[in-house]
Amino acid sequence: MNKDEYFMKIALQEAALAAEKHEVPIGAVIVCSDQIIAKAHNQTEMLNDITAHAEMLALTAAMEAMSSKYLPDCCLYVTLEPCVMCSGAIGLSQIKRVVYAAKDSKRGYTRCQIPIFHKQTEVIRGVCEQEAVQILQTFFKARR
Amino acid sequence: MNKDEYFMKIALQEAALAAEKHEVPIGAVIVCSDQIIAKAHNQTEMLNDITAHAEMLALTAAMEAMSSKYLPDCCLYVTLEPCVMCSGAIGLSQIKRVVYAAKDSKRGYTRCQIPIFHKQTEVIRGVCEQEAVQILQTFFKARR
Repeated sequence: MNKDEYFMKIALQEAALAAEKHEVPIGAVIVCSDQIIAKAHNQTEMLNDITAHAEMLALTAAMEAMSSKYLPDCCLYVTLEPCVMCSGAIGLSQIKRVVYAAKDSKRGYTRCQIPIFHKQTEVIRGVCEQEAVQILQTFFKARR
Repeated sequence: MNKDEYFMKIALQEAALAAEKHEVPIGAVIVCSDQIIAKAHNQTEMLNDITAHAEMLALTAAMEAMSSKYLPDCCLYVTLEPCVMCSGAIGLSQIKRVVYAAKDSKRGYTRCQIPIFHKQTEVIRGVCEQEAVQILQTFFKARR
């Protein structure tokens, strides 16, 4: 297992925690110098707040952990392609790398025709994609 | 003074509060049935959190006030055109109306080539634009 897969598995564990709480199962982890500085899962139901996506919660926690508004030495792992809100926040944070698992053709930021992330930000897609898709499909199938 | 100007003046007061605290002066107000249910100003410096834009803080406060993740009967007043992050959050909230004062050609959401807001959301631009531009210009001039 490489480093990206290792950290994505932890993001998937966060997604599983969300599912247990009847939240849409999306998890995020933020890493700096190979150390996890923040992890979070979607909490929109519990907090009754549509902005409480895994990425937003992880970014806020990481900024607190780093005592910095910017995260240019950090990497975000997230189990689903970020939405427009989260990608905007990722762009503002100037994070160095974004690694995501499953793509979101309906709500994902890649629909936007303009660069949203910082120009230096590297994006890696498809790490542990199968597991991320499966956890989402299982969740929604149970609710149909 | 019409209703939109009245509520935008309150958003401008929020922006002035931000300036007093050495925050970039942007203010937001959320109204439901002609009642203010949330107001906020940019707090990125104080909270050391780049996601703490006026609109994000106002949306979260409004969702708490309404005990609802969605705000389909509400109107957001904000002194500057929302950025991509905030426009994504506005879209998720399904807010009914967005009224903004000054445009932001560099960071504003209108650069995006796709619809971000809910398809029913009405957008009004330019209400109290002069005052909003002036408060921003005064702030940045003093820092140059």
